[in-house]
Amino acid sequence: MAGQAIATDVHSLHDDLTALDAYWRAANYLSVGQIYLLDNPLLREPLRVEHIKPRLLGHWGTTPGLNFVYAHLNRVIRQRDSNVMYVIGPGHGGPGLLANTWLEGTYTEAYPAVGQDEDGIRRLCREFSFPGGVPSHVAAETPGSIHEGGELGYSLAHAYGAVLDNPDLLVACVVGDGEAETGPLATSWHINKFLNPATDGAVLPILHLNGYKIANPAILARIPREELDALLRGYGYVPYYVEGDDPTTMHRDMAATLDRIFGEIEIIQHSARQGEFAGRPQWPLLVLRTPKGWTGPSEVDGVPIEDTWRSHQVPLAGVRDNPEHREQLESWLRSYRPDELFDEHGTPRPELTEQAPAGDRRMGANPHANGGRLLKPLRLPDFRDYGSEVTTPGATTSEPTRVLGRWLRDVLRDNDDRRNVRLFGPDETSSNRLDATYEETGKQWLGELLDTDEHLARDGRVIEMLSEHVCQGLLEGYLLTGRHGLFSCYEAFIHIVDSMFNQHAKWLKTSKRLDWRRPVASLNYLLTSHVWRQDHNGFSHQDPGFIDHVMNKKAEIIRVYLPPDTNTLLSVADHCLRSRDYVNVVVAGKNQSPEWLDMDEAVLHCTRGAGIWEWASSDDGGEPDVVLACAGDAPTLEVLAATSILRERLPELKVRVVNVVDLMRLQPASEHPHGMTSAEFDALFTTDRPVLFAYHGYPWLIHRLTYRRNNHRNIHVRGYKEEGTTTTPFDMLVLNDMDRFRLVIDVLDRVPDLGTRTAWLRQDMADTRTRHAAWTRAHGDDLPEVRDWVWSS
Amino acid sequence: MAGQAIATDVHSLHDDLTALDAYWRAANYLSVGQIYLLDNPLLREPLRVEHIKPRLLGHWGTTPGLNFVYAHLNRVIRQRDSNVMYVIGPGHGGPGLLANTWLEGTYTEAYPAVGQDEDGIRRLCREFSFPGGVPSHVAAETPGSIHEGGELGYSLAHAYGAVLDNPDLLVACVVGDGEAETGPLATSWHINKFLNPATDGAVLPILHLNGYKIANPAILARIPREELDALLRGYGYVPYYVEGDDPTTMHRDMAATLDRIFGEIEIIQHSARQGEFAGRPQWPLLVLRTPKGWTGPSEVDGVPIEDTWRSHQVPLAGVRDNPEHREQLESWLRSYRPDELFDEHGTPRPELTEQAPAGDRRMGANPHANGGRLLKPLRLPDFRDYGSEVTTPGATTSEPTRVLGRWLRDVLRDNDDRRNVRLFGPDETSSNRLDATYEETGKQWLGELLDTDEHLARDGRVIEMLSEHVCQGLLEGYLLTGRHGLFSCYEAFIHIVDSMFNQHAKWLKTSKRLDWRRPVASLNYLLTSHVWRQDHNGFSHQDPGFIDHVMNKKAEIIRVYLPPDTNTLLSVADHCLRSRDYVNVVVAGKNQSPEWLDMDEAVLHCTRGAGIWEWASSDDGGEPDVVLACAGDAPTLEVLAATSILRERLPELKVRVVNVVDLMRLQPASEHPHGMTSAEFDALFTTDRPVLFAYHGYPWLIHRLTYRRNNHRNIHVRGYKEEGTTTTPFDMLVLNDMDRFRLVIDVLDRVPDLGTRTAWLRQDMADTRTRHAAWTRAHGDDLPEVRDWVWSS
Repeated sequence: MAGQAIATDVHSLHDDLTALDAYWRAANYLSVGQIYLLDNPLLREPLRVEHIKPRLLGHWGTTPGLNFVYAHLNRVIRQRDSNVMYVIGPGHGGPGLLANTWLEGTYTEAYPAVGQDEDGIRRLCREFSFPGGVPSHVAAETPGSIHEGGELGYSLAHAYGAVLDNPDLLVACVVGDGEAETGPLATSWHINKFLNPATDGAVLPILHLNGYKIANPAILARIPREELDALLRGYGYVPYYVEGDDPTTMHRDMAATLDRIFGEIEIIQHSARQGEFAGRPQWPLLVLRTPKGWTGPSEVDGVPIEDTWRSHQVPLAGVRDNPEHREQLESWLRSYRPDELFDEHGTPRPELTEQAPAGDRRMGANPHANGGRLLKPLRLPDFRDYGSEVTTPGATTSEPTRVLGRWLRDVLRDNDDRRNVRLFGPDETSSNRLDATYEETGKQWLGELLDTDEHLARDGRVIEMLSEHVCQGLLEGYLLTGRHGLFSCYEAFIHIVDSMFNQHAKWLKTSKRLDWRRPVASLNYLLTSHVWRQDHNGFSHQDPGFIDHVMNKKAEIIRVYLPPDTNTLLSVADHCLRSRDYVNVVVAGKNQSPEWLDMDEAVLHCTRGAGIWEWASSDDGGEPDVVLACAGDAPTLEVLAATSILRERLPELKVRVVNVVDLMRLQPASEHPHGMTSAEFDALFTTDRPVLFAYHGYPWLIHRLTYRRNNHRNIHVRGYKEEGTTTTPFDMLVLNDMDRFRLVIDVLDRVPDLGTRTAWLRQDMADTRTRHAAWTRAHGDDLPEVRDWVWSS
Repeated sequence: MAGQAIATDVHSLHDDLTALDAYWRAANYLSVGQIYLLDNPLLREPLRVEHIKPRLLGHWGTTPGLNFVYAHLNRVIRQRDSNVMYVIGPGHGGPGLLANTWLEGTYTEAYPAVGQDEDGIRRLCREFSFPGGVPSHVAAETPGSIHEGGELGYSLAHAYGAVLDNPDLLVACVVGDGEAETGPLATSWHINKFLNPATDGAVLPILHLNGYKIANPAILARIPREELDALLRGYGYVPYYVEGDDPTTMHRDMAATLDRIFGEIEIIQHSARQGEFAGRPQWPLLVLRTPKGWTGPSEVDGVPIEDTWRSHQVPLAGVRDNPEHREQLESWLRSYRPDELFDEHGTPRPELTEQAPAGDRRMGANPHANGGRLLKPLRLPDFRDYGSEVTTPGATTSEPTRVLGRWLRDVLRDNDDRRNVRLFGPDETSSNRLDATYEETGKQWLGELLDTDEHLARDGRVIEMLSEHVCQGLLEGYLLTGRHGLFSCYEAFIHIVDSMFNQHAKWLKTSKRLDWRRPVASLNYLLTSHVWRQDHNGFSHQDPGFIDHVMNKKAEIIRVYLPPDTNTLLSVADHCLRSRDYVNVVVAGKNQSPEWLDMDEAVLHCTRGAGIWEWASSDDGGEPDVVLACAGDAPTLEVLAATSILRERLPELKVRVVNVVDLMRLQPASEHPHGMTSAEFDALFTTDRPVLFAYHGYPWLIHRLTYRRNNHRNIHVRGYKEEGTTTTPFDMLVLNDMDRFRLVIDVLDRVPDLGTRTAWLRQDMADTRTRHAAWTRAHGDDLPEVRDWVWSS
């Protein structure tokens, strides 16, 4: 019966399960070994102090359960020749995954020094959680993993991301009962409303109830069975239960239940793929309830350990100083009967290794888990064909993201047969004006459909769920399995995934240093509905700080682009979708705004990353009196408007306009691969002239990037200084002192001697500013002369 | 029947409901007015272009449903004299809350210029989403709100936080079906496992299914009823349903259902408070299904609007240019029959205003929603009594957070009768070594209890749920209703709530400028298990960037402390728990580490925020050759060890040691209220000597804070540069170039002429460093001479 452990004919399984149990014991043995042992890894002699690590690091509690699942998945994979990847939420169960990949041989293939013999076991144990070795958590270093388990909450989203457009793939995803309490995980159960059983693969969530977190019971382990069952059915799954602590019974139940579940999945997929069923299936889900620290010490110093939170980390902490503990450790290790498991060389016996599937069917070798191996470059239509004709700077306007949407539509079209690119957004794709993409594809949706719905499609390649966490998690899973994608988000709310970004950036940094990991497509953020045009949603929607946040990660990973208009946005986007192993942050506007550069100029400007806009400058290629620099669309507009005022009112003043698209150019070349040399920087910003820099975000970032530059003392930055509300676009600029009139005043105040000579202009600007601000506040709209201002040189 | 709309005898309700409907129409009328009208607010004349706002901002879709709930809660409050606060997740339904608070009079009390007459209505409408007015979302400006609705996901956690230790309070919390898709909200349903019906109040979640987000259907509105019902029961609630679109039927159903629900809650609380029931109750939950944009235009330009996503924002966008739309708006407004609702002065008729409860029972006036009104200062035991005896700097060690835990235990004890202080943590309170608090209180837990459990208590004042979002949300709700608290968290994972912190900081900034909002207790973060001692969990657990993140918010709100030892931590913690309207970030270690200052010195040092440690310096109060500065416990230890080496090996070198506790002291006084003047800064850091600054976090933050200082060009910073893995503490320092030997080399390289004279020492330091690093990597442990190093002067 669905929802119940399944009784079945077990006799045919008996031999299988005996060998499987031996395999499981081996994995458990090796896991304990990693936590404790420096030497004597096969217990060829009695355990002595010097065999034991000086610092005991690692997490035992979750590990035997993870090993149990691995062993049983192996069995099903072999029987069905299934294509299975393993994602484990309780990623601190690192020793388990290392043990299993070592047993199946994939660990040795990735790290040839760790052979399948006694010396290899010694190294496996020693290098775990050891300087120069491998981390205690599942991580980029772990063969077969696309998931870093150090931060909890993202396993299911990664799993679902991996199976999108991979119809033959099944991801078995263990969700710990601790992780299940996190927000991102709690909403990830609902991703099943987006999964298409015909065109996507399957996720088998395995809710592992072992009862405890670090020091507390877990919620889902302490609610009545009927509540748990209702919850999981409410999420849209059919739960199956395997529960207990007796290995023999558990093996039997687990094998039978997995057979049943894999059969269910096959039926679901078959009927969907035959066109017999077009709705949303009720996917099976496995609840595995085992003791925490299963098969470990049941009591230490008279206190219960197994099946309590005390087995979370290292159950016997005193093994170096306390001979009794050491004896207990030794008998714990011997309880797995290592002599039956490994031959005289320390090589696992054939009946064990036969438990693992062969070749790429081994979960540690699944090519999807090393996505770069499968990555195909996108076919990208020439973005130049989508650009705007710009004959005079500023004479025409467009909505940058809307134009980008047309190019993205055709990116989707040109890769339609491969289905290897997707857009993700938290219900904002249309608001962010990328809706041209709906001409080519729809928003994937397996929920109920109504006549009034638009753009929903069972096999669409846009996914919109109102969870930035899920968007990010799906995209990560999609990229790490060798595909391409873009996450478009309101700028302020991308902070919701700050921490997920951290982990992905750490993953990329690490994986770049592993030669067996192949490069994957970059993670592309399009941040729009940005701070300067969130005048209508107000203060809560105004935060440009994600740029600051990403800057803390390794320079080799991070790219930040602020295209000032439509053509530069297209050029930047094309570049980002071609790149590998980066996180690209692109901040661009969605509102009608002036076009400054024609396509050739745009490409050249983006290639340079920063440059002088001669057409806007009045220094005739010589030394300017002042440099007006800008990065971002709103700052660019205000700088040009200020420049225009200066040209008209102070024609003798030599103004140079510098625009920065690629923010990393500002850093020294020693700090970032895109950084300008000192000479390049000085050529743009001079060594001694005042620089007024209007920047999209928090102003101090520009100082952080430029403090080592020769002319830093003369750089004055205007930007968002955390002032705003629901108001008009112009009022936002005034509140933050970045409006054109303020910029003119700044120039007058900073060019030596200019202020005194131009008191009349200063006064005029101050008056104009006041008048405009008063008008906008009285009328709730900007004066047409600001709103509709057009550059003319 | 539970779970079904309730048929009851409705005749007695008839008159009530007729008046209630009029009240609802008035709220809806005023809501539409706010979105559209500049003038002619009572439609005394035909609607003309000039009566309409130039920019139409606001969200209609959710608003009529929110008004409906408000009107019905008013009825129940009056009948039962209930103490009810209203938290709305769909906070962009701002016009609804403004309309209701205006109708009940609380809006006018907060903003006397907006009277309850025609001119007041004009102002109410005009100021909504208008420059200089009030935001489009529910926010600090909204009377009766503790919730900013601009960022979705936190309503339920805020609601639960508000009712903790407020047994008489009921928070009705509307959860939008969009918000329900966010991770934080999805896990917040489970907070009911922590709520004690005897000592806490009640939350009534109202899941508002109106079917759509911005441009997509909402998941929970499109799953079958049986799934939805199972889901809500699985969360542990008993769902009641009110569904439909006919106002008369809906009023009847809603009134009957709320009566039933309030009765259920009363029974639950009564039996718990009489000691008749000690378990976890199944709390009622209301599912309200209404059309989106209910009572608005059903069709515009031949396209359906009501009950589709198109009514999300402004359903008639063309009213200024399109006379047909304008007509449609006018008849929409008149459909509420304003002449029946307001008298000739524009004052709401008495039968309407009688719908609202009186005085503080009005939801806009509930004192809990302006928590500063109820705030009682904590009774704080003298922290000096908990400190360590320090006779010689560095001679003794302690675990700073463990000592802090003892003081916190007694803070809990001394305020036990008031129950107005709580600790929150994501399963880390014990790991963070604050477990002394369990001597005084337990971890609140209403789930199943087992014999092996420890420190769980039905009325504990520590809450541990493995969700940083929930911890943060509960604490915010607790603080904003006038209580005190602390959130202890692993440093790396506090980034999970970056975005929640943003919104709280924005709330504080705004509320400080509203004279009717009273100051609340600061939000205190204790970040421990920090980057330098996450050698055992590895790279995923290493991120000190939260400090950078908070620095982007207003200086008037933000405080960051890095106490270098136990006594300074106590002093800082005492200061933080006394403060108001700040966000205090305290970063402190939990491991055994040296004690540097005795209590008097610690208090003095913390009061100054930064100072010269004369006992460690060798400049005898004169000009030093080099300044070694440090902020954070690990950097302080390394700086002192480097100083010690320098004293021994280069006794003639004059070294000054400066320690910084209060990071804000580094900024110019013009930038932050704690900032040092230029003279103060120069007195510590000199104007021309090399400064080597060892800093806890990402090094560039120190540059950002000091780039305007005279001596900035000589400041060289060492800190965490995103290198790490599972390794030893010393290897972490080496990987990031912050170990003592590297610091000595830095000094030699930076003090003019010193390098050439001391090539021998430089070589020795380089060799020692290599030797130590090799040893630690070979042995998986630090050399005793590093691990157990003790300062001696």
